[in-house]
Amino acid sequence: MEQKLYIGVIGSAEAPPEILEMARKVGREIAKRGAILVCGGRGGVMEAAAKGVWEEGGLAVGILPGTTRKEANPYLSVAVVTGMGEARNAVVVRSSDAVIAISGGYGTLSEIALALKMGIPVIGLNTWQLTAPDGSGGHLLLAKSPEEAVSLAWRVADGE
Amino acid sequence: MEQKLYIGVIGSAEAPPEILEMARKVGREIAKRGAILVCGGRGGVMEAAAKGVWEEGGLAVGILPGTTRKEANPYLSVAVVTGMGEARNAVVVRSSDAVIAISGGYGTLSEIALALKMGIPVIGLNTWQLTAPDGSGGHLLLAKSPEEAVSLAWRVADGE
Amino acid sequence: MEQKLYIGVIGSAEAPPEILEMARKVGREIAKRGAILVCGGRGGVMEAAAKGVWEEGGLAVGILPGTTRKEANPYLSVAVVTGMGEARNAVVVRSSDAVIAISGGYGTLSEIALALKMGIPVIGLNTWQLTAPDGSGGHLLLAKSPEEAVSLAWRVADGE
Amino acid sequence: MEQKLYIGVIGSAEAPPEILEMARKVGREIAKRGAILVCGGRGGVMEAAAKGVWEEGGLAVGILPGTTRKEANPYLSVAVVTGMGEARNAVVVRSSDAVIAISGGYGTLSEIALALKMGIPVIGLNTWQLTAPDGSGGHLLLAKSPEEAVSLAWRVADGE
Repeated sequence: MEQKLYIGVIGSAEAPPEILEMARKVGREIAKRGAILVCGGRGGVMEAAAKGVWEEGGLAVGILPGTTRKEANPYLSVAVVTGMGEARNAVVVRSSDAVIAISGGYGTLSEIALALKMGIPVIGLNTWQLTAPDGSGGHLLLAKSPEEAVSLAWRVADGE
Repeated sequence: MEQKLYIGVIGSAEAPPEILEMARKVGREIAKRGAILVCGGRGGVMEAAAKGVWEEGGLAVGILPGTTRKEANPYLSVAVVTGMGEARNAVVVRSSDAVIAISGGYGTLSEIALALKMGIPVIGLNTWQLTAPDGSGGHLLLAKSPEEAVSLAWRVADGE
Repeated sequence: MEQKLYIGVIGSAEAPPEILEMARKVGREIAKRGAILVCGGRGGVMEAAAKGVWEEGGLAVGILPGTTRKEANPYLSVAVVTGMGEARNAVVVRSSDAVIAISGGYGTLSEIALALKMGIPVIGLNTWQLTAPDGSGGHLLLAKSPEEAVSLAWRVADGE
Repeated sequence: MEQKLYIGVIGSAEAPPEILEMARKVGREIAKRGAILVCGGRGGVMEAAAKGVWEEGGLAVGILPGTTRKEANPYLSVAVVTGMGEARNAVVVRSSDAVIAISGGYGTLSEIALALKMGIPVIGLNTWQLTAPDGSGGHLLLAKSPEEAVSLAWRVADGE
């Protein structure tokens, strides 16, 4: 009954091999450090991250948008079926102590924004660049490698 | 990557000892049979069922209504934080292959109704009795003991 | 900018003519008294109630479960598209100061239960009968006619 | 029972006077053209847009995040109470045929992203600038004035 850390990994359902490899490495690192992976439960980056967790015997949770568990990727330990469509993005993020964004499209961008709105730290790996209306940058923490992304997540998630 | 069964257990956040004991037995039985427990993640029946799962080394998932993991009971393997209030009841039910209702108040009644609406079988253990507008009964399957409830859940959840 | 009352009307997407006529009368009465109708936005009882409101030139709001406004009935003043499936039932109820349940199936039952859970009064017109686990009845207020239902709604909604 | 257009206006709950004035003008223009305003129902840009609609006798709908109508601004024709927190952002956007983003913080950014994910056109007025992971820009349509923003919304919302 120790408290575990929950790390969200967000990214597209379709992505090129080098992005998937990044996601898999992030997943492995998360599992090695004993945290729980939270993701959107589907393919692409979500599946690759879950696969990394699975390879290390860790726990991967998928929060699915549709009404059936059939859309889950095969590496999840637990698949939650929301039936809420894109509104589930708020649940993925809310369930995470820190979020790692890997590349990604508009769905990922919405999760980055929701996390920052909720005060949940976001680490960006090859992802969106944001310029606020006043010209300032967004508050993403930038990482250059999967290892650095996970290190940063730990640093900000546990308040170190 | 075998497919596991997901069994929901629904009931009140406050309940007398004999109801909690029922919930704990249901949880133990679910874990013994290798299924994943889905519940609302809080105290009372939800906690007792999760405790039963924990005693058997199983996997218990809590779908929380509020915005923080702090409201989770200590026996959950995974706590999902929805921030959606009562709307999360639909997620608890949607994520389950069958639902066991143990006693319960209006929140439990809403979950029974949502499950039946979605076509998910519900087993009732000392719970609400329903009489439809046309005088017919609801489609709850009635069980007399925790063991019978879990047996029934398996029978209906896997289409036997 | 006066404060208007919001009255929910819940019931099935398919219903026999006498039930639809009840719903239409409830809708007319709600509009005559200057309140806003809240409903699930689809056919059957929801459409009949909205039609009654429309006949009196009132305001009818539909909270739709799907992802498109095409499923809305034609009598709504405003259609809200949630894309959240059954989880939208919590929004219908949460937006109402009192709820009138007319006949109905499991979806309606879930809304009755969610309302009672949230402390929102429910008036029943030819609807579900509930018996709690302890043998007590539910807290529905029973009405025998559309007029009585609306009268009761006003009495409980404004705390008279 | 003509089909009306629904135009979303998104922006912060707190904003400087010149931004509020933009929002009010956008609201007035939307009402003059006979469309329904959809917004998040709270203060700042949401209130200013609703005020503009109110000045022209139009219809303004607010989709509130919390559990009570008390957080609504006073210019709404209809306040929907979701109790879903930030997950309600998906409902604001899903209910709109086009969305006008005026300045804004992370909440607004999440709505821009959700809209683009759902294929709903977004017009930006002094708002976020987005650079995708591949270096391309986002698909916001940029406007320089409230009038141009509303014109653009009409052009893209009705498929012209």
